[in-house]
Amino acid sequence: MLDKYLIEDHIKQALKEDIGFGDITTEYLMPSEQNLNCELKSREQGIFCGKDVFTTVFETLSGKINIEFLKNDGDSLEKGDVIAKIEGPAKYILLGERTALNYVQRMSGIATETNKYVKKIEKYKAKIADTRKTTPLFRVFEKYSVKTGGGNLHRYNLSDCAMIKDNHIVAAGGVTAAVNTLKKHISHAHKIEVECDTKSQVIEALSCGADIIMLDNMSCEEMQECVKIINGKAIAEASGNVTLETVESIAQTGVDIISTSAIVAKAMPLDLGLDCK
Amino acid sequence: MLDKYLIEDHIKQALKEDIGFGDITTEYLMPSEQNLNCELKSREQGIFCGKDVFTTVFETLSGKINIEFLKNDGDSLEKGDVIAKIEGPAKYILLGERTALNYVQRMSGIATETNKYVKKIEKYKAKIADTRKTTPLFRVFEKYSVKTGGGNLHRYNLSDCAMIKDNHIVAAGGVTAAVNTLKKHISHAHKIEVECDTKSQVIEALSCGADIIMLDNMSCEEMQECVKIINGKAIAEASGNVTLETVESIAQTGVDIISTSAIVAKAMPLDLGLDCK
Amino acid sequence: MLDKYLIEDHIKQALKEDIGFGDITTEYLMPSEQNLNCELKSREQGIFCGKDVFTTVFETLSGKINIEFLKNDGDSLEKGDVIAKIEGPAKYILLGERTALNYVQRMSGIATETNKYVKKIEKYKAKIADTRKTTPLFRVFEKYSVKTGGGNLHRYNLSDCAMIKDNHIVAAGGVTAAVNTLKKHISHAHKIEVECDTKSQVIEALSCGADIIMLDNMSCEEMQECVKIINGKAIAEASGNVTLETVESIAQTGVDIISTSAIVAKAMPLDLGLDCK
Amino acid sequence: MLDKYLIEDHIKQALKEDIGFGDITTEYLMPSEQNLNCELKSREQGIFCGKDVFTTVFETLSGKINIEFLKNDGDSLEKGDVIAKIEGPAKYILLGERTALNYVQRMSGIATETNKYVKKIEKYKAKIADTRKTTPLFRVFEKYSVKTGGGNLHRYNLSDCAMIKDNHIVAAGGVTAAVNTLKKHISHAHKIEVECDTKSQVIEALSCGADIIMLDNMSCEEMQECVKIINGKAIAEASGNVTLETVESIAQTGVDIISTSAIVAKAMPLDLGLDCK
Amino acid sequence: MLDKYLIEDHIKQALKEDIGFGDITTEYLMPSEQNLNCELKSREQGIFCGKDVFTTVFETLSGKINIEFLKNDGDSLEKGDVIAKIEGPAKYILLGERTALNYVQRMSGIATETNKYVKKIEKYKAKIADTRKTTPLFRVFEKYSVKTGGGNLHRYNLSDCAMIKDNHIVAAGGVTAAVNTLKKHISHAHKIEVECDTKSQVIEALSCGADIIMLDNMSCEEMQECVKIINGKAIAEASGNVTLETVESIAQTGVDIISTSAIVAKAMPLDLGLDCK
Amino acid sequence: MLDKYLIEDHIKQALKEDIGFGDITTEYLMPSEQNLNCELKSREQGIFCGKDVFTTVFETLSGKINIEFLKNDGDSLEKGDVIAKIEGPAKYILLGERTALNYVQRMSGIATETNKYVKKIEKYKAKIADTRKTTPLFRVFEKYSVKTGGGNLHRYNLSDCAMIKDNHIVAAGGVTAAVNTLKKHISHAHKIEVECDTKSQVIEALSCGADIIMLDNMSCEEMQECVKIINGKAIAEASGNVTLETVESIAQTGVDIISTSAIVAKAMPLDLGLDCK
Repeated sequence: MLDKYLIEDHIKQALKEDIGFGDITTEYLMPSEQNLNCELKSREQGIFCGKDVFTTVFETLSGKINIEFLKNDGDSLEKGDVIAKIEGPAKYILLGERTALNYVQRMSGIATETNKYVKKIEKYKAKIADTRKTTPLFRVFEKYSVKTGGGNLHRYNLSDCAMIKDNHIVAAGGVTAAVNTLKKHISHAHKIEVECDTKSQVIEALSCGADIIMLDNMSCEEMQECVKIINGKAIAEASGNVTLETVESIAQTGVDIISTSAIVAKAMPLDLGLDCK
Repeated sequence: MLDKYLIEDHIKQALKEDIGFGDITTEYLMPSEQNLNCELKSREQGIFCGKDVFTTVFETLSGKINIEFLKNDGDSLEKGDVIAKIEGPAKYILLGERTALNYVQRMSGIATETNKYVKKIEKYKAKIADTRKTTPLFRVFEKYSVKTGGGNLHRYNLSDCAMIKDNHIVAAGGVTAAVNTLKKHISHAHKIEVECDTKSQVIEALSCGADIIMLDNMSCEEMQECVKIINGKAIAEASGNVTLETVESIAQTGVDIISTSAIVAKAMPLDLGLDCK
Repeated sequence: MLDKYLIEDHIKQALKEDIGFGDITTEYLMPSEQNLNCELKSREQGIFCGKDVFTTVFETLSGKINIEFLKNDGDSLEKGDVIAKIEGPAKYILLGERTALNYVQRMSGIATETNKYVKKIEKYKAKIADTRKTTPLFRVFEKYSVKTGGGNLHRYNLSDCAMIKDNHIVAAGGVTAAVNTLKKHISHAHKIEVECDTKSQVIEALSCGADIIMLDNMSCEEMQECVKIINGKAIAEASGNVTLETVESIAQTGVDIISTSAIVAKAMPLDLGLDCK
Repeated sequence: MLDKYLIEDHIKQALKEDIGFGDITTEYLMPSEQNLNCELKSREQGIFCGKDVFTTVFETLSGKINIEFLKNDGDSLEKGDVIAKIEGPAKYILLGERTALNYVQRMSGIATETNKYVKKIEKYKAKIADTRKTTPLFRVFEKYSVKTGGGNLHRYNLSDCAMIKDNHIVAAGGVTAAVNTLKKHISHAHKIEVECDTKSQVIEALSCGADIIMLDNMSCEEMQECVKIINGKAIAEASGNVTLETVESIAQTGVDIISTSAIVAKAMPLDLGLDCK
Repeated sequence: MLDKYLIEDHIKQALKEDIGFGDITTEYLMPSEQNLNCELKSREQGIFCGKDVFTTVFETLSGKINIEFLKNDGDSLEKGDVIAKIEGPAKYILLGERTALNYVQRMSGIATETNKYVKKIEKYKAKIADTRKTTPLFRVFEKYSVKTGGGNLHRYNLSDCAMIKDNHIVAAGGVTAAVNTLKKHISHAHKIEVECDTKSQVIEALSCGADIIMLDNMSCEEMQECVKIINGKAIAEASGNVTLETVESIAQTGVDIISTSAIVAKAMPLDLGLDCK
Repeated sequence: MLDKYLIEDHIKQALKEDIGFGDITTEYLMPSEQNLNCELKSREQGIFCGKDVFTTVFETLSGKINIEFLKNDGDSLEKGDVIAKIEGPAKYILLGERTALNYVQRMSGIATETNKYVKKIEKYKAKIADTRKTTPLFRVFEKYSVKTGGGNLHRYNLSDCAMIKDNHIVAAGGVTAAVNTLKKHISHAHKIEVECDTKSQVIEALSCGADIIMLDNMSCEEMQECVKIINGKAIAEASGNVTLETVESIAQTGVDIISTSAIVAKAMPLDLGLDCK
């Protein structure tokens, strides 16, 4: 998913952002022939994410840095675990260190946070999904991290799935009118989701053939009722007020998907560091 | 600081990231002549940040959206406060909504978190400063938000201030050798900071003329001693273990700067939303 | 769909491609204050497409060119019809002429070709759809033109709808295994299409819940049989050997979608020209 | 001509256009270690074009795909001919397949169409040349294909050769005035072409030293007369109404160049496909 | 020639190069509402060049800066002449000052240097022309400046005129073979120049129909002889050892073109400055 | 400092600038399998600069060009010295020759000019430094060349060091007010420089804690006095009227830094050439 052609320009820009015109400290203090042996280590428990990104950062800087991974994307980390061994020219390892960590700490943090939700509901059929509330220009990394943490992905952007909200319903003159108009115009390869606030909207959305029905900010009782109405004829997605505390009770309502921005927006960077000898 | 020439490309890319080939829902459901009146409102307490970014998002999409701000960057927000009134073509407001919010929620979140630290130590001379632990390609927005929250900025990247760390000291053969080499080579317009773990390193860094002395992961007692040794002849910067709980006691040691990645990395997006009528 | 933020960079690059370092003829022969009145006229019958692109080409060159459109995207053109009146500095009109025409001739050609297929089957429920066989970096314009000509769009790229082909079926160990694996992994917001060569594959794809079933290179008799099997429980898409001659008999099979690369790949540029006085 | 530095960015963008955020089908169904053996085969008669482009598409995706070409750019193809053998990771071959074909099908189509014209007039001195009526941002590939098909290239853009048209003649006050003004101003390294509608314009253009005289939309009789007048003192270029039916009679007039947009604009993609085992 | 679409990206990048993350001095010291009145003045004699570039720099930064030009590109300047009056927000004028001057000082310097050569030979038919020895990524500005100073332009790059040099002659097996091969292959819209070291090469190049004959590093006597041989049947271009001291005697040989890198490479920036009140 | 990630895009753009759509001469005259052996030689005395740039130009074009350097950046060159031996495909060496030379000639010219100043004052403590008067988009190469010639670098741009000038002093209400405001707002990692015209300004700047004091356009007597006043408590920087003739007497005043745009702006390209066999 994070193939090189997709991420190498982002990484090169990020390196320019962090390095500027060069590392004026290392430039004059580190002999260019000097090598360094380092370990990427975990300083807390979590899920690792970002192997290809980490590698590409250093490949962009130098062809002489060797990296051997002991952990893969999605692996659990305990405090002290060695994730990778890095060996190569000291100058370029120090040059890339901060940027590489800035990526993998954030990515691993999101994978870790996502996984907490996933674990909470693993005995239910519901899956955790992300939203479009992401950091500008960092979405592809954030979505990959959610996936790595065991989450499900929601649409990438406004063009790969239709989502009918309040304003659309008003403008179209009702749920049915909105769904029918979209069925006429959008690609047959794309789904239609309707954001529903009430049971009657759910019934209407279901009857006009929505693919996904979002139960927006409903109580668990309402959701449970709606899930019964939907009865497998559409995908039932819960949204709103999703926290680590509430997620299990939401899953118990029988919804298929629980979407929340929290797994990205509220994730802390995981504490990973480079220990060099 | 966030002048248009600097941010407009970032914003255009972010819009492409979120919109893809177009909003397939709004495209077919919203009559192109329909206007919308919205308010950007705060759903929790905090500090607002991102006025120019918010404006540029919508200007990039349409020349017909009018935005009137009732709050400025740095202003306090209470739950329910109206930050701005937006009026213009419904299509373009819906098109930019998510992207605009993704910027200002993150920026306001960082300003808010920073301000909590700033408030905690406002009676001390110490200032809160950020670090290079930022989100790749989002640093300029994060640094601006720290500044807006009342924080101080540390170096932008590896080229505008020298920072001598463990590896450099070993490679150069000691603190004094490292500082002297840098003084010979780097621009006279740039400062030299030395990361010190011990009192003896502080003494050496001071005696060879370091501009900034970082007291790295020291106890408050050690820091206090070092501040006395430094005695205004260099800038004393505390680093490590900085939390909302510890920051005041660190400030009490008399340091000039307390730098921490927490104000960026641990800030939650502030809950702001667009209420459209 | 072709909003300015999405196309302006493409257009600027296209202008650089055609103009190079400047129009050395016009530069020295056309007085800079001289104005020109032109008409964009159709030299053959067809469907017009490309209004916003045409406008953006000239806006990129000069703020002083006024364009009044007499036709809209999707309108029918007879030979001799005036599509738009253009007035402004001669220098910039001549500078943009070729590039503007290169866009709208191709776009109108595709809209025209698509519309021929659409017309052929307008009394059937089947819709014509495009494919991914597009000109590199020109897809967004080609898809918009298909839409303008009355066509339906298939997926934009490999990430917004899953399409299971031969190689995937073999690798996964069968249609059912492939569909189930995808259902587990891909976004709930995305559909799954299965390319079927035989009736038994259709039956299997249907029973495991594929959203779209492609009837690939089947005879009309086979297709008719499969449509009956599918019976509205999935979208039936015909593909292969679609020409203006065969399209009606394919539509008669009862399929929902007829996808073909011909509407893009075999469309000739429509003969439009700028007549200047 | 299509050296890597010139085309690799175009190709990377085209891959992003077709792949989006990743191939969601292949990603989950194709084991990453699985290899594939394929053949690029011709499904109709024509001229092959696009070897370097084809190679660069796959090199951009993976360093592990080996391609052995059995045909070179410009070689004739019969239906069923194997053009190249491709071997490597299934995932990356499937990822690049459509994009690679989109390039080489169009390029080979243009080479094939051009070659038909070239063949028609091979016993005359006249050469077939292209025009600026190309697909935006695809010109470099189209011109290379024309060349590969045996055609001659006209100017690349508005800056490498002057072309005096009606509007210029009017603005300058006559052919002679226009040519003389350009001779004074443009680079001595660039030629001047005059678009002539009449014999008297031809005589004037010749007498004032035009390098190339375009005989625009003339009958064959007029052209023949003009060619005699020109008599080798300038290059005689025929333009207008060039089709496979008319091209030989145009060549018989003795012109040096026959330029036509048809070899690019009316070329169909050549039917090439990847057969994988 | 320097139309906005062509230069605006270069200028935006140059502003980012000079401003970085913002002008930390002006940011905090200049009230944002404060206006400034400045004059762009000449501090030495020369030729002005760069009006559109100067304007675009400030337009990129702010829509509120008004610039009134008293001099045009190509006008002579005396020490103390006011070239333009600038009025607008102090902040943005100071932000753009250095970048604007960096362009126009260099451009005016080249126009001035070129004009010295032009003046020296104004009574001869020879024209001064530039070469490809330009500053990387600054060629378009340098060529425009040469033109503004009264110079003639040589080819823009390796693709708009053929130039046969020693290595080519050896590889092709002689001048005639080289010219004939190129005539067969390159566009009829492009010229062929042959670099000749000796009289016999000149005779051969002429007889096989070269468009331009470069007399490379010849003495004035040799050149005079060669000009007689050429006798108007090709363009005679002198190259090598061109200085302000030698240029007149070279012109006296009767050559058509005298090309030299000196007008660009040896031009000093003209001393222009912004005087603000 | 000129690491590959930092310069490869600049170089690729420069190659496109110089090559355009391909070298139409070499393309048809040079057999693709032909190899060439060349030497990069100095044709005058100077300091070499640009090794990595030279290498990257050719690496961008071909993986088969081998370059062996006999000189390093900063080495002295005598006329006739061989700097490097280049061996590889003739086609690509000729393609990159001009671009490679355009970089290294300018870079070596700046290193050479800088070194003349450095040599003149080598027995004084003063260092030569550059300014922001550089060629747009070429600053990173110019600064590296100054460094290579033994010079010191001034700030890179407006964001890495504050520089208080006349307009700022007026706006802030005096030197002290300006310095204090900046101390409050800018990063503790950045220095403050004050441009002083008079002794009293120097005294004020020193007393309020400026890090660098620029003695702007002062006579040597004034500077000497000011240096005594400053007495090591700030960095004393001389600026204005710096020439090879005046630089030694300025150094004798005891200043720490002598900054001048002359080392960049008045440097001539060093005459280096590629001699191919």
